[in-house]
Amino acid sequence: MNSFIKEKIAQAVFILQEQDIDLWLTFVRETSVNPDPILPLIYGQSSLTRPSALIIHRTGECIAIVGRIDANTACGLGVYQQVIECDAEIQPHLLATLQRLNPAKIAVNFSQYNVMADGLSVGLFEVLKNMLHGTEFIQRLCSSEDIIAALNGRKTVREVALVRAAVEATEEIFEETYAILREGISEKEIADFMHAQVIKRGLDLAWTYEGCPAVNYGPDSPVGHAVPGDIVLQRGHIVHFDFGVKKSEYCADIQRVVYMLRTNEKTAPAPVQRGFETVRKAVEAARIKIKPGVTGFEVDQAARYAIIQAGYPEYQYATGHQLGRHAHDGGGILGPHWQVYGSLPDAELECGQIYTIEPGLAVPGYGYIGLEEDVVVTGNGCDYLSAPQKELIYC
Amino acid sequence: MNSFIKEKIAQAVFILQEQDIDLWLTFVRETSVNPDPILPLIYGQSSLTRPSALIIHRTGECIAIVGRIDANTACGLGVYQQVIECDAEIQPHLLATLQRLNPAKIAVNFSQYNVMADGLSVGLFEVLKNMLHGTEFIQRLCSSEDIIAALNGRKTVREVALVRAAVEATEEIFEETYAILREGISEKEIADFMHAQVIKRGLDLAWTYEGCPAVNYGPDSPVGHAVPGDIVLQRGHIVHFDFGVKKSEYCADIQRVVYMLRTNEKTAPAPVQRGFETVRKAVEAARIKIKPGVTGFEVDQAARYAIIQAGYPEYQYATGHQLGRHAHDGGGILGPHWQVYGSLPDAELECGQIYTIEPGLAVPGYGYIGLEEDVVVTGNGCDYLSAPQKELIYC
Repeated sequence: MNSFIKEKIAQAVFILQEQDIDLWLTFVRETSVNPDPILPLIYGQSSLTRPSALIIHRTGECIAIVGRIDANTACGLGVYQQVIECDAEIQPHLLATLQRLNPAKIAVNFSQYNVMADGLSVGLFEVLKNMLHGTEFIQRLCSSEDIIAALNGRKTVREVALVRAAVEATEEIFEETYAILREGISEKEIADFMHAQVIKRGLDLAWTYEGCPAVNYGPDSPVGHAVPGDIVLQRGHIVHFDFGVKKSEYCADIQRVVYMLRTNEKTAPAPVQRGFETVRKAVEAARIKIKPGVTGFEVDQAARYAIIQAGYPEYQYATGHQLGRHAHDGGGILGPHWQVYGSLPDAELECGQIYTIEPGLAVPGYGYIGLEEDVVVTGNGCDYLSAPQKELIYC
Repeated sequence: MNSFIKEKIAQAVFILQEQDIDLWLTFVRETSVNPDPILPLIYGQSSLTRPSALIIHRTGECIAIVGRIDANTACGLGVYQQVIECDAEIQPHLLATLQRLNPAKIAVNFSQYNVMADGLSVGLFEVLKNMLHGTEFIQRLCSSEDIIAALNGRKTVREVALVRAAVEATEEIFEETYAILREGISEKEIADFMHAQVIKRGLDLAWTYEGCPAVNYGPDSPVGHAVPGDIVLQRGHIVHFDFGVKKSEYCADIQRVVYMLRTNEKTAPAPVQRGFETVRKAVEAARIKIKPGVTGFEVDQAARYAIIQAGYPEYQYATGHQLGRHAHDGGGILGPHWQVYGSLPDAELECGQIYTIEPGLAVPGYGYIGLEEDVVVTGNGCDYLSAPQKELIYC
């Protein structure tokens, strides 16, 4: 764990130099209740119980100003060369440190659209500004969103391997699940089975219990973050899954589709086949666009166009999101220019980022088809982390 | 779960009337990454994946404006009479709702010192303010900290019972742990045993794995949030534990002390006895002060004075904190007037709040003595939820 934090902090120092920012300040308090989502990368899983400042400087100097009872833990990480203990007041220690380093820019964790970079809460920012009141530092505050987008987005080799392991575990559970699909089994029974598989393997879920997995049978099951229900599987249903496990703190996020043949069918009927092929083409249209330097918007448009051009309604969500410690890992997305996404679709893709690609469409009378693959951006393209579903699965 | 949310939302409506605030707005986005800590009380465990507004009005009308894929879940809660689905934009829906209700005050979740009431992040507040730009509503925003302090603080009967159950499970594990204390066993081995007990019972830990339990032997073990280490138990050591389980989402937080008799000892030596009695007296001094209307500062002073007056150094932390879904549950504390605590010690205690009482002191040459009891504030005093440790335990 400590070597992971060392690696990410070294990356952060490099990013500060690259972005010409002197100092990155993560200011927190009582992280067991409302943690800054960036803490696992720069502090690990331990909690901080007092107002605390984690400072990373472009020279590589790292300083933790923490409450006395947290000082042992901070020292134990081995990444903060200086651990300053405080009891009643953090202000003098923080000011002294800033005065010594005299940074021209101080990046703090706020961002309108990148949730990973918006860990500083409104009241706590007031506390920080009050501490800096009357100093020149208050004018030097800026957003750390570009630092965090780069640091959290650019996965290390270790992180990519962890996502790959989560993907593999997810795929194993999918295989076991396909084997128990039978006429009359309910969505809820399937979800229970998948939950049991996760527990048996000592894994966690990549998102909330109620919606992981999502299991949707046929045309009448509400797709989206709805709880698997009492609908039972019938011949002629499309079965749609959205599922991922979390393994060693990293997530997978995969959608799969199965078709239950009617007694007289050898293959799925033409509308189901055509729907599947269209979604598959949309996945590929996105995948071949993905490489460093293109924007998420461009990738989204490629997949979206493949669906629309085939005559299906436009899906009402982004084509993909980043994946890592969270199923929705913040940062730039593969998405359209909608108000809710702000500037996120305009971020350029970078090597090491992991994205989902997840177009979808409804086939009237049969159900919902959504495929979701996980890919890592490489030097000149991207690689699948999941084994992509290239053909309909039958049951 | 839904009946719990119904109960808390009914309480919130009462509190809005009591505090003369028209409307409480919880504005969130992508809650799987950076959730507002108040969500479990008003929305439950499900995540929201888009910018969303949860609105509670003093008339009892509750409105959820959420992304399409979250709408099924929001409806399923049965507490929001109106669930408004949105895709690309939340702004028109939010403005239309505010215009219809025309609230004089709109409370939003920011607070300088109550971490439970500071769920709104800086960037997200900018997004909200941009949406309200040019309307009169922007002038009507105020802090929801008093609402949240009341809502989260005043536990319902159901919540008190859940904390009591967590306390009982914690006490059971303590009893099992005392039985395995023997010369030569390391702090880490004890922590491993306690973790195994938690897993065996299907429980969670009340705080982070590394520091729950804290186990400290003798005078050389670093007290505080330090990881249990390789120190082995020897005769003449004080054993100090800080531990709590989370059961059905509610926490316990208890400190206990054990003394390992030397071969020639029948009871603990005088300095250990005196230290224990002093801490015990400090706990009682706080307990008899606790009732609705007194401030946390007054309670803190009573316990603190008991320690100082006996000639021990003042402990460098607050005497107690609230307990509930989190071990440190936000809101007013039993604490001194130190900068780090802001106005939290000045909050008046209310019926239904649950506090820890946890004074402590070091006995040179023997180790650290800290007792931590959990109490619920009643109409005219408080009741122990834990069975208080009134005598030294020997091993």
